[in-house]
Amino acid sequence: MDTFPELLLAGYRNFMNGRYADARERYRVLAEQGQTPHTLLIACCDSRAAPELIFDCGPGELFVVRNVANMVPPFEPDSQYHATSAAVEYAVQVLKISNIVVMGHGRCGGIKAALDPDMEPLSPGDFIGRWMQLLKPAAEQIQNNDLMTQGERQTALERVSIRNSITNLMSFPFVKTLHEEGELNVHGAWFDISSGELWIMNEAGDFIRPDL
Amino acid sequence: MDTFPELLLAGYRNFMNGRYADARERYRVLAEQGQTPHTLLIACCDSRAAPELIFDCGPGELFVVRNVANMVPPFEPDSQYHATSAAVEYAVQVLKISNIVVMGHGRCGGIKAALDPDMEPLSPGDFIGRWMQLLKPAAEQIQNNDLMTQGERQTALERVSIRNSITNLMSFPFVKTLHEEGELNVHGAWFDISSGELWIMNEAGDFIRPDL
Amino acid sequence: MDTFPELLLAGYRNFMNGRYADARERYRVLAEQGQTPHTLLIACCDSRAAPELIFDCGPGELFVVRNVANMVPPFEPDSQYHATSAAVEYAVQVLKISNIVVMGHGRCGGIKAALDPDMEPLSPGDFIGRWMQLLKPAAEQIQNNDLMTQGERQTALERVSIRNSITNLMSFPFVKTLHEEGELNVHGAWFDISSGELWIMNEAGDFIRPDL
Amino acid sequence: MDTFPELLLAGYRNFMNGRYADARERYRVLAEQGQTPHTLLIACCDSRAAPELIFDCGPGELFVVRNVANMVPPFEPDSQYHATSAAVEYAVQVLKISNIVVMGHGRCGGIKAALDPDMEPLSPGDFIGRWMQLLKPAAEQIQNNDLMTQGERQTALERVSIRNSITNLMSFPFVKTLHEEGELNVHGAWFDISSGELWIMNEAGDFIRPDL
Repeated sequence: MDTFPELLLAGYRNFMNGRYADARERYRVLAEQGQTPHTLLIACCDSRAAPELIFDCGPGELFVVRNVANMVPPFEPDSQYHATSAAVEYAVQVLKISNIVVMGHGRCGGIKAALDPDMEPLSPGDFIGRWMQLLKPAAEQIQNNDLMTQGERQTALERVSIRNSITNLMSFPFVKTLHEEGELNVHGAWFDISSGELWIMNEAGDFIRPDL
Repeated sequence: MDTFPELLLAGYRNFMNGRYADARERYRVLAEQGQTPHTLLIACCDSRAAPELIFDCGPGELFVVRNVANMVPPFEPDSQYHATSAAVEYAVQVLKISNIVVMGHGRCGGIKAALDPDMEPLSPGDFIGRWMQLLKPAAEQIQNNDLMTQGERQTALERVSIRNSITNLMSFPFVKTLHEEGELNVHGAWFDISSGELWIMNEAGDFIRPDL
Repeated sequence: MDTFPELLLAGYRNFMNGRYADARERYRVLAEQGQTPHTLLIACCDSRAAPELIFDCGPGELFVVRNVANMVPPFEPDSQYHATSAAVEYAVQVLKISNIVVMGHGRCGGIKAALDPDMEPLSPGDFIGRWMQLLKPAAEQIQNNDLMTQGERQTALERVSIRNSITNLMSFPFVKTLHEEGELNVHGAWFDISSGELWIMNEAGDFIRPDL
Repeated sequence: MDTFPELLLAGYRNFMNGRYADARERYRVLAEQGQTPHTLLIACCDSRAAPELIFDCGPGELFVVRNVANMVPPFEPDSQYHATSAAVEYAVQVLKISNIVVMGHGRCGGIKAALDPDMEPLSPGDFIGRWMQLLKPAAEQIQNNDLMTQGERQTALERVSIRNSITNLMSFPFVKTLHEEGELNVHGAWFDISSGELWIMNEAGDFIRPDL
């Protein structure tokens, strides 16, 4: 096997001497009693958009799914395996999560790829190409909007995608039912990776900066 | 829309006043120049196993995929969308990542579900049931071992699964090629969520505690 | 006769000048009044797993049986001589011991031999081969688990064997009766000869590290 | 499971903070490279006759068998399991031990039992009774010697038994051969548990105190 990255081992040492040392008892209790996170957070893999950092969360708080462009596919109860759907099902049905947040971010590489009509498959499997098909109709429509700058189209699709994922979430019967009963809240958020600003989605679907 | 969780807004305020304030310039540069994370980290959604905390990583370091039981499916270049495969493809082909770490952890709910022969579908879609099919043959073999305790079987399958995911990673031609050329290193790790101990996979596939 | 090993004589001199000198009175009283050890400790012959060192015990504390792989055979009241059974009988019936500890350890050569299907007899008598038959069914089941590494199978069988020996202990009527009456406690332990860690068996049969 | 004896846990803490801490590297090397003990020491279970204490030995030095009255049975290559024979075979054939020491001691309970013609079985299995049959002819002859005190008969049989065990050791073909070739030395010793004196057997079979 290859030598484990020294950078990660150094970070792990800091963790053990710092955060873990300060929260030793909490880690033990969480291990013994099980996790009861308050939020299912669907975020992007992007190294600049880590939920635990942005929301200053410690162990036990967030159940986190991360995929390219933080997308939730539509409800498809077929025989395939569906990573994101499985995570949503587990969070809602087993962990009884009461909040779901879909968090997108600026300069998302996946969104950028979806907006690029000439993008070549990254490998013969064309996995990103097929994954971003979840957003294709919306991407095409946005890309055709030649009055907007590329940057504006990028931000527009990032936000359209969040609303799209929330719609898909609501297509899961167990999400819909619990939401209607007031047991489960669903939220959208968009993180500006440059300024650090957090924009929250309101009832109309608009993203606004909250009073802090 | 429902009111955004106050807990998350409070954490976000801490972030802005603390970490973000300390690294303002870094966030800006990363936004302008793009991310160049050194590691693709495939971890579990579990709220007790967050990579950025365990490895004390800041923005720009880790490209993170999180799904239930930190699994990498086998290479399947079909017409389906594959969240984890897409993320791996993006990390390797676009971001030119040089390290992949598959990190499992103790008391994994997904692994526990895989070992439960009588588990009912969590919803009519049975998403967790189908997702954990990725591990079914192994789970059955481990579960049949009646000499081991349930705890021992749990740990055994957590580690078998990591080795399994690494094998699946190597079934991606672009991963295999780059690995053979020495351009890409692949690692396994297992995090004890109670003691905070990190176990690293060695050449034999055994998990041992590194000298720190 | 061959010359007594100088190494042992040197060690004996240290003993007389050190430990014995410090505990002279204790040795005398123990000789005159008889031994009243608190624990029967069944350990392996392995030079790295000596109970008096691991538990920092002085004279009079531990009644120690040591055989290859620290095994207790099942209760067999036949006409054969049974070394381990005789020691258990003496400890319980004469010395009225109130604790029995079966202590296994990592990297046990006997366990390794049991897991080796192709191992040749070490001598025409094949004594190790026959002794390890005590564990054969379990060893075969564990060895067939090809998903686990050889290291994982080794540790698994070491612990299965401890549980097995405790079950065999309970098959001795006088042990069973005294245990049921609360007069005799039985424990399992596993010593990591590399890290020095001691793992204690809990009610479920799992080995965990105690709070120290 | 019953609570692990606090006395042993306290001793273990001392071990970790003391002996283990001082010899940490040695334990690790021994674990990785395997054990190469210099002596096979056959001793009694008696809590007052622990070889590691008497010979001030650390990890890796002594391969220790302990049974009641430190006896080696005669060579019997049948289908039964033989604990002591298995340990001797392992020590000589695998570990290539170059010294065997049979160490008896004063006030041995097993020897005392052998000298007691009226001793009742300690349990229906009569394990001690059958185990001490290894010494019965000798015990009867010694016990009939009414000119000696009981204490003198006790010491006499302890030493007869050591010589007897050495004779039995020599009945193992692989021991005999290696001894004749000068590859394996065999020794007898007797430890006075009261005075701490060590008596070594010489060529004539006599036990004398060595010059130290």
